[in-house]
Amino acid sequence: MTSYDDGNIFAKILRGEIPSLKLYEDDTAMAIMDIMPQSKGHCLVIPKAPSRNLLDADDSTLAAVMPIVGRLARAVRRAFGADGVQVAQFNEEPAGQTVFHLHFHVVPVYAGVPVARHGGGSAPQAELEEQAEQIRAALA
Amino acid sequence: MTSYDDGNIFAKILRGEIPSLKLYEDDTAMAIMDIMPQSKGHCLVIPKAPSRNLLDADDSTLAAVMPIVGRLARAVRRAFGADGVQVAQFNEEPAGQTVFHLHFHVVPVYAGVPVARHGGGSAPQAELEEQAEQIRAALA
Repeated sequence: MTSYDDGNIFAKILRGEIPSLKLYEDDTAMAIMDIMPQSKGHCLVIPKAPSRNLLDADDSTLAAVMPIVGRLARAVRRAFGADGVQVAQFNEEPAGQTVFHLHFHVVPVYAGVPVARHGGGSAPQAELEEQAEQIRAALA
Repeated sequence: MTSYDDGNIFAKILRGEIPSLKLYEDDTAMAIMDIMPQSKGHCLVIPKAPSRNLLDADDSTLAAVMPIVGRLARAVRRAFGADGVQVAQFNEEPAGQTVFHLHFHVVPVYAGVPVARHGGGSAPQAELEEQAEQIRAALA
């Protein structure tokens, strides 16, 4: 496995070098909107520790992140009345990983609505901003 | 959301009422082979606490389980030379949840080999037993 490279887009977001729609932040992690959502409300939880993925992450990083994933899953369900939530985490390119900084996908599911493929098109910024506001309200 | 029902198959496995191919166990969780694997080495990490899914799980349950998921992900990669690993966790039926006790899928991915659909056919017992032995060795 290649080692961690801090030039990836999530590292830049964590350092504040490029903008994101932030939903949540604490000492260990940040949650943001996925700009190429697979469903309405698709968001990401990104640990701050510099891990490439689950395969090189410290136990403490993994222990800290999952309660936050749980909070986001409950928030998207409340915010949008989702009928279910999928959590996905991809390790290495053949498994679908596209950004090489550990992250967890929180994908709301709506009955009868197929989940779009991973890495499809971007959503309109205004739509993402409105959804981010709804998730922040549901987290509060 | 419906509340937790301890008649589900994973609760029975945790209580030892029905057999499983056990890979790992500690005070907080058990890891077993998935008998309807989506790929070679597909296994499950099941917290012992009685949660329906991520939406009703305690933070302590979630914090304890993810380092174990990480260990299993590293073990399947080592055991089978997988090119990647997908971790998936489904909440409620529209999201693909079929057993209503919190569990995490650890699915090895092999370059060029499509991952089978969730809940497809069962694998031969002898094949699963051999894979379980390889994962136990990789965990040791």
